[in-house]
Amino acid sequence: MRTCRFRRGGRERWGVVEGLEVRALTAEPWAGGLAEGPAYALSEVSLLAPAAPSKVVCVGRNYRAHARELGNEVPKEPLLFLKPSTAVIGPGGEIRLPEASKEVHHEAELAAVVGRTLTRASAAEARQAIFGWTCLDDVTARDVQRAEQHFTRAKGYDTFCPVGPVVETDLDPLDAVVTCRVNGEQRQRGSTRDMVVDPYALLAFISQIMTLLPGDLVATGTPEGVGPIRRGDWVEVEVSGIGVLKNPVV
Amino acid sequence: MRTCRFRRGGRERWGVVEGLEVRALTAEPWAGGLAEGPAYALSEVSLLAPAAPSKVVCVGRNYRAHARELGNEVPKEPLLFLKPSTAVIGPGGEIRLPEASKEVHHEAELAAVVGRTLTRASAAEARQAIFGWTCLDDVTARDVQRAEQHFTRAKGYDTFCPVGPVVETDLDPLDAVVTCRVNGEQRQRGSTRDMVVDPYALLAFISQIMTLLPGDLVATGTPEGVGPIRRGDWVEVEVSGIGVLKNPVV
Repeated sequence: MRTCRFRRGGRERWGVVEGLEVRALTAEPWAGGLAEGPAYALSEVSLLAPAAPSKVVCVGRNYRAHARELGNEVPKEPLLFLKPSTAVIGPGGEIRLPEASKEVHHEAELAAVVGRTLTRASAAEARQAIFGWTCLDDVTARDVQRAEQHFTRAKGYDTFCPVGPVVETDLDPLDAVVTCRVNGEQRQRGSTRDMVVDPYALLAFISQIMTLLPGDLVATGTPEGVGPIRRGDWVEVEVSGIGVLKNPVV
Repeated sequence: MRTCRFRRGGRERWGVVEGLEVRALTAEPWAGGLAEGPAYALSEVSLLAPAAPSKVVCVGRNYRAHARELGNEVPKEPLLFLKPSTAVIGPGGEIRLPEASKEVHHEAELAAVVGRTLTRASAAEARQAIFGWTCLDDVTARDVQRAEQHFTRAKGYDTFCPVGPVVETDLDPLDAVVTCRVNGEQRQRGSTRDMVVDPYALLAFISQIMTLLPGDLVATGTPEGVGPIRRGDWVEVEVSGIGVLKNPVV
């Protein structure tokens, strides 16, 4: 199943995507929303971010080759950081370059959408609590990150968290291909098989620290090939089996 | 004016405190909630965290003496980090020590409660957008922080963000005394006059990066004297003019 959030005629709804059509849901998909009303062509609606998370939990250096390309060791335990919910934008949403940075990078990632409240869970319990999967761009002001040696500011700017286009519930997250293209040219391509900590273990780890709530997003790290985006670029993040998240840079 | 959130008869409401009584509000205080219904004695209700933030933005090393006590320089610009909303607890709520840490510290702070959406604002605009002030304990697993050199995990555990007891709208945040006591013994005492970056400038700085939403909390840093809390302790955070936030450690 593919779920989404969409705007049509000024109204925003949760939805389910069937082929090239979308139907509205009575509630959030992870809260048991049921399809109701007519089907609309996807071309008739605007897709929004397919989750409205209370928090976005991310992990640094979860692919060995990416840790190496920035001159870092792979940490012994997952290195967590948070992106604020105010950074989230949807498919087609504009990534706004802040004046404070001269070097903003794309980071293509697979993200889990939490379906049920998760506290101090095992990996098996975490697996059961995941609703589905989406694409996420962990946009990063690399120069700010380098200067501060901390992540919150560099990764927390408004619009620095594109998410979408849909949430796919049927996906093997242990064997997916994560790709980033800028203006059609491939910049990142990696397999989730190369993750240091797999998504189920990652959610279990996070849930020992902070309770994950329905709709929360957990980004699973980026493969090698991160690099700059510039005003006028179009950035695409694709995860095989989910779709393409495409955002302009302004 | 002093506002709060309280539980009575199984129902949770926003409220306004008048002397030793509380009356319910029709909406969040910063959303123009009006008093309605009878007044209850404070002794008849349970106070909850007086804000339900979408995010809690904190700043590291904002008092010179505290930066020094942990062997750090004062950063050139505010060093921001986020605590997840799942860490927030109210007056009397239990601070749960995680198994992963052997050294959990109190950090008493003055926190601003945002009243209006704030994006790329000046300090004067930030001042206008603040609804009020409360006490906050930025509980920190110091050993985890030291090992990781990052803040999210060390400060993000469930229950690591006691807030309350009330929000005071009439306070001069540039001249308040922040105190922490453990089992009645004073551990921290500082004046907000010694802050490196004052709260208005701090909110303005944050708003250049991430939009602040009504109800969001901005903690303004801790004075010197941070130290360990242990199972069975009672921790009190007091800000002059607001009140005492008291939490047990379990």
